Amino acid sequence: MAHYKVTVSYDGTRFCGFQRQSEERTVQGVIESALKKIGWPGTSILAAGRTDSGVHALGQVISFDLDWVHSVVDLQFALNANLPPDVAASSVKLAGADFHPRFDAHGRCYRYRLYTSSVREPLKDRYAWRVWPGVDLSSMQIAAGHLPGAHDFSTFGTPPNAGGSTQRCVSRAEWFTDGIDLVFEITANAFLYHMVRRLVSFQVQIGQGKLAPGAVSEALDGGTKELVRGLAPPQGLVLVEVIYEA
Amino acid sequence: MAHYKVTVSYDGTRFCGFQRQSEERTVQGVIESALKKIGWPGTSILAAGRTDSGVHALGQVISFDLDWVHSVVDLQFALNANLPPDVAASSVKLAGADFHPRFDAHGRCYRYRLYTSSVREPLKDRYAWRVWPGVDLSSMQIAAGHLPGAHDFSTFGTPPNAGGSTQRCVSRAEWFTDGIDLVFEITANAFLYHMVRRLVSFQVQIGQGKLAPGAVSEALDGGTKELVRGLAPPQGLVLVEVIYEA
Repeated sequence: MAHYKVTVSYDGTRFCGFQRQSEERTVQGVIESALKKIGWPGTSILAAGRTDSGVHALGQVISFDLDWVHSVVDLQFALNANLPPDVAASSVKLAGADFHPRFDAHGRCYRYRLYTSSVREPLKDRYAWRVWPGVDLSSMQIAAGHLPGAHDFSTFGTPPNAGGSTQRCVSRAEWFTDGIDLVFEITANAFLYHMVRRLVSFQVQIGQGKLAPGAVSEALDGGTKELVRGLAPPQGLVLVEVIYEA
Repeated sequence: MAHYKVTVSYDGTRFCGFQRQSEERTVQGVIESALKKIGWPGTSILAAGRTDSGVHALGQVISFDLDWVHSVVDLQFALNANLPPDVAASSVKLAGADFHPRFDAHGRCYRYRLYTSSVREPLKDRYAWRVWPGVDLSSMQIAAGHLPGAHDFSTFGTPPNAGGSTQRCVSRAEWFTDGIDLVFEITANAFLYHMVRRLVSFQVQIGQGKLAPGAVSEALDGGTKELVRGLAPPQGLVLVEVIYEA
């Protein structure tokens, strides 16, 4: 029995999130079904984190024990042959027996994509949020500049366990444009529930002139006492990477 | 009664092509349904061209007569409110009574996107073709260099009407990379049935070293006598623009 670390990408549109639920189609559910077809005797895989319903991933990380006599390349091939088209194993590696995708992770990087238009764009709407009225990118860049560092993010999300710490350490937060869309990338040691989507919604309000760029620093560290309003929709969000020590 | 020219974009995934069919979901069908809900008395809209099942569009052009007392902005809003999420009217303009989206078009521009990878990428597969083994871009660029000009494209497609002309005039054909994917853009006065998808498949075979770049010029002008083999899949293809005189 060896322990495998697998990087997984998925289109979250047709999933009720990552975490297995008895009645719903979930990413964890289809991965575990695929593993069972190739002889996995387990009951639950480990994962770096849960993504919400409709959120995508390029670099979710999972791990499991498996008795596999062939190569890791063959394992990747077998997994992909048994996974549906909206999930793929993008890399498979042998890991130490005590590797844990969540506890060993040093950071996570998320990307959020939006476009500004008064009209729907069907070829963008699966992977981006349409925002209107338009936004001022430089105000949002100033706002994002307040995020790096260790802060109490309790006004931007809730901890995974009630009463848990709401302190998180952001190492990078940036808005930029690829020439067409606006993209927000944020890396932190970990994230609160809905934290990226609340941060995006809040910064869009700044970009639209409804809030001043300084509102971010006022809301940080428990400044506004309660959760900020507004949640950017899930389809713009991608879990890009889970970061481990080299 | 005024005549309106409407630019339409759609995600072709869930459509059985553009052209109305009695039993299938088509782009024309859902547009005509939306028009009927806002009082359109017609039986058939006009369109610049038909796209195949699974092919997308950013700039399909349609036209119709409508008695509409409000502004074109209101008409666009009403249309989009009645269209499903995978179709949108991206621009609405008044046109001359004799405007015909197909006969008045001087050219069409199509874009085809592909990526090379041994592994599926779920976040790309809806709008691109996965190609493996990889390709040599410069060979494909040399191949595309043979396409501009007036040629008999009968080995790359069939005319809309049996016995019709197979001569088409290509004004631009180019492969380039956006840094990640490979993109083919081609503009011509008009296209034969399946012509872009056959050209892409043929050039990919060149990129993979299965054919020499010069094979394109040998196949042009009826050189190979019969249709070349291979058809790139529909999801990589987008009708980008229909070109009219200024």
